[in-house]
Amino acid sequence: MILAKQSPLTRKLSAFVALSEAELAVLERLHQRRRIFAAGRDLVHQGQSDQAAYILSSGWVCSYKVQADGTRQVVDFQVPGDFLGLRSVLLRTSDHSFEPIVTIEAAEVLKSDLLVAFAQTPRLATAILWAASRDEAMVVEHLVGIGRRDADARMAHFLLEIGSRLALVAMGNKEGYACPLTQYHLADALGLSAIHVNRILRQLREAGLMTFRKGHVTFDDYEGLVKLAEFDPAYLDQTGPLLK
Amino acid sequence: MILAKQSPLTRKLSAFVALSEAELAVLERLHQRRRIFAAGRDLVHQGQSDQAAYILSSGWVCSYKVQADGTRQVVDFQVPGDFLGLRSVLLRTSDHSFEPIVTIEAAEVLKSDLLVAFAQTPRLATAILWAASRDEAMVVEHLVGIGRRDADARMAHFLLEIGSRLALVAMGNKEGYACPLTQYHLADALGLSAIHVNRILRQLREAGLMTFRKGHVTFDDYEGLVKLAEFDPAYLDQTGPLLK
Repeated sequence: MILAKQSPLTRKLSAFVALSEAELAVLERLHQRRRIFAAGRDLVHQGQSDQAAYILSSGWVCSYKVQADGTRQVVDFQVPGDFLGLRSVLLRTSDHSFEPIVTIEAAEVLKSDLLVAFAQTPRLATAILWAASRDEAMVVEHLVGIGRRDADARMAHFLLEIGSRLALVAMGNKEGYACPLTQYHLADALGLSAIHVNRILRQLREAGLMTFRKGHVTFDDYEGLVKLAEFDPAYLDQTGPLLK
Repeated sequence: MILAKQSPLTRKLSAFVALSEAELAVLERLHQRRRIFAAGRDLVHQGQSDQAAYILSSGWVCSYKVQADGTRQVVDFQVPGDFLGLRSVLLRTSDHSFEPIVTIEAAEVLKSDLLVAFAQTPRLATAILWAASRDEAMVVEHLVGIGRRDADARMAHFLLEIGSRLALVAMGNKEGYACPLTQYHLADALGLSAIHVNRILRQLREAGLMTFRKGHVTFDDYEGLVKLAEFDPAYLDQTGPLLK
């Protein structure tokens, strides 16, 4: 039975540590200030100070940096259960912007809320540090992947990673997942042109590996795709049998 | 007056939060198991499980990933005051390796030590989360820089970033800093050939901007170098006047 109070973040952190009733209650209180945000309007601007962090409970968000020449570089996407701007709330000045891709629900978390929660339960502090470490591991994986993987392996790796992240919050499995990203998002994230993205997706479909259509990613041959991408999910630390 | 017990990590975290006597004592206890490690022998191997984290108190370390094809990709360098493998100790499997560049001194920290320390002082947990967030911000900055900056701006940005990090632990300033990196390290880190690195360093020297010679980086024209690199240190969250 899924309890109503089991937010995606709770599910995610539970993959790292078995939270007690008291810890669950503290985590739940962090979700108090829930708000709805419309697609396309930044939650947090790059360079903004004294902003809050947010816990995303539904919808997808794009985080990006604006370059000196005005172009946008996608850093990552956030899915339910992810923090938005956790590092920014601690680093004072946000080093990137967050834009909801669809209408989202997110709970505002102030630095003081975090301090209070950590004082109440140090295990929760460790769990949140785990989540931050996992985010960093993903960025490192992207950094390494950018120069090394061919465009088709990069695409496959990206969509498999998102699938694993969604599986952690019970929103995806080895069959696939609902995905609101456009081909433009994929192009920005992978450093490819939209035309190139289109061609690669067609190749992957024709090879019987996966299909991305009408807001849904379908893994037609999960193991084949893993092989193409050389996808080893160890860096996501989801050692349980999550994708099944 | 600098107290003997002011380790580089203590100095670094003090830039984020004014630590009380009690918090300093807890932080000091994390430094108990100090060990010396020789250059060139990995502290932590990629894929290793149940490893400890380390607090680096002297010397420099290179963190890298080994690719499926056997090549090495440098992720970052660690300087005194940095954690080695903080995210790995939480993520169970290390996603990268650590190799001392010179003889180093580092204190071993187990996951259980962290939990005990966090239970004693939640403000310390927040400070360590701050340090982890700052590390992530650096990786994001590298990710964005890789495709966007010319080789000379990339080199300048890299050496300025290291300078700012060292300034935080009183090991560098706007004049320069001692640097044990070789041109091969620079080449690996910046995705350039050793010959290319050599040429860029000569150009920067001939332009009167900086000199890298005999294990020392000298900023001949700090502001000029900042301008070339478009270096904005906000992501390092060192809002105090550190470089002076």
